Amino acid sequence: MKFTYVTLFSNLIEPYFYDSILKRAIDSNLLEYEFYNPRDFTKNKHNKVDKQMVGGGAGMLMTPQPLFDCLDEIKRKNEDAYIIFPLASAKPFKQNDAKRLAKKKNVVFVSGRYEGIDERVIEKYANEVFSIGEFVLTGGELPSLVMSDAISRNIDGVLGNAQSLEVESYENNLLEAPSFTKPEIFQNLSVVKEFLKGNHSKISDLKFQMSICKTKYYRPNKEKR
Amino acid sequence: MKFTYVTLFSNLIEPYFYDSILKRAIDSNLLEYEFYNPRDFTKNKHNKVDKQMVGGGAGMLMTPQPLFDCLDEIKRKNEDAYIIFPLASAKPFKQNDAKRLAKKKNVVFVSGRYEGIDERVIEKYANEVFSIGEFVLTGGELPSLVMSDAISRNIDGVLGNAQSLEVESYENNLLEAPSFTKPEIFQNLSVVKEFLKGNHSKISDLKFQMSICKTKYYRPNKEKR
Repeated sequence: MKFTYVTLFSNLIEPYFYDSILKRAIDSNLLEYEFYNPRDFTKNKHNKVDKQMVGGGAGMLMTPQPLFDCLDEIKRKNEDAYIIFPLASAKPFKQNDAKRLAKKKNVVFVSGRYEGIDERVIEKYANEVFSIGEFVLTGGELPSLVMSDAISRNIDGVLGNAQSLEVESYENNLLEAPSFTKPEIFQNLSVVKEFLKGNHSKISDLKFQMSICKTKYYRPNKEKR
Repeated sequence: MKFTYVTLFSNLIEPYFYDSILKRAIDSNLLEYEFYNPRDFTKNKHNKVDKQMVGGGAGMLMTPQPLFDCLDEIKRKNEDAYIIFPLASAKPFKQNDAKRLAKKKNVVFVSGRYEGIDERVIEKYANEVFSIGEFVLTGGELPSLVMSDAISRNIDGVLGNAQSLEVESYENNLLEAPSFTKPEIFQNLSVVKEFLKGNHSKISDLKFQMSICKTKYYRPNKEKR
């Protein structure tokens, strides 16, 4: 698997590869990554990649030409390039997407900056558009990293312990039950007693009930799948 | 405003302060940040901060003692400490939270690693718990940065152009309309014609309609507020 990042600020992305799940995936030769800077493709004599919005509106927008040329080159070099735009207004990225994208050979993340990207770039090149949540960020770099982290956990061999994937939140559409370590009592706060008794079917039953409660509490409108 | 990060991996967070909205906020003296490492507080003779889960379950969990002592010290030093745990199973972080938290004096983000954090730590110290989306990440560091970016945009003075906040997605509970720059036609792809005619009330009307369509398309279940 290769992650390709199209960004004006690779320095906001690359450090995460020095020490994280992504480093581990790189070290195991399960993942590689590369950067493209749209500025290297601009034909503007002042090296600009942004312009004012047409029709009014505050701020600057990334203009088509540098991104068209950059993405054309990426597609020429990587026939499996699967291009994702992290956008504030797009469909929500979910755990199932992380699993699905973990099967791709080359995922390309295109980070907008300023007020965003000229819609024609998205229209022409996006295989998918994702929003990581209902909030506004300064650029696409953090969402690209968030998706990279979530995806890379699902690449075969990246997580040492495959079992740990199965009990996690969203894997069964329920939030994860509370977990505890020893000591049983710490500063008068106790572990849930049933967890200590060693009856694993009872524990797993209780955890399931707690998961249901937690999901109802935090996701009151969640639909059953 | 001060952001305090409790993390075993400050190197996954700090680089984002070197070049981003967060750097700009620091440079303008509108923001400061600090790190605490739970490992500096452990009383375990091997310097460990994690233990096996009680009651079975794959993987290791962050154990109470180091985090209790670390968070006690933070609360002692910062009477305004407002403690947030980014968790996979928690309520969704939204734009309104970013705005609300931008008014706090000290927001503390506690990053879990391994399989998470002993629930007693969360019970005792969390002022709020947030999930940034329905997917699983390796640790709390990226969600802490995501929330920091979203919050810092809403601190008075951080964004140069206050107007740019108002037209963004989620500000009026609608997704943002498509935007365009010149040229009007690029590789046969045209800007939406109405945007070029300069009738601003018509443009703003059209953008509003496009926002409604986009929201219906990407968020079919979104409730009206």
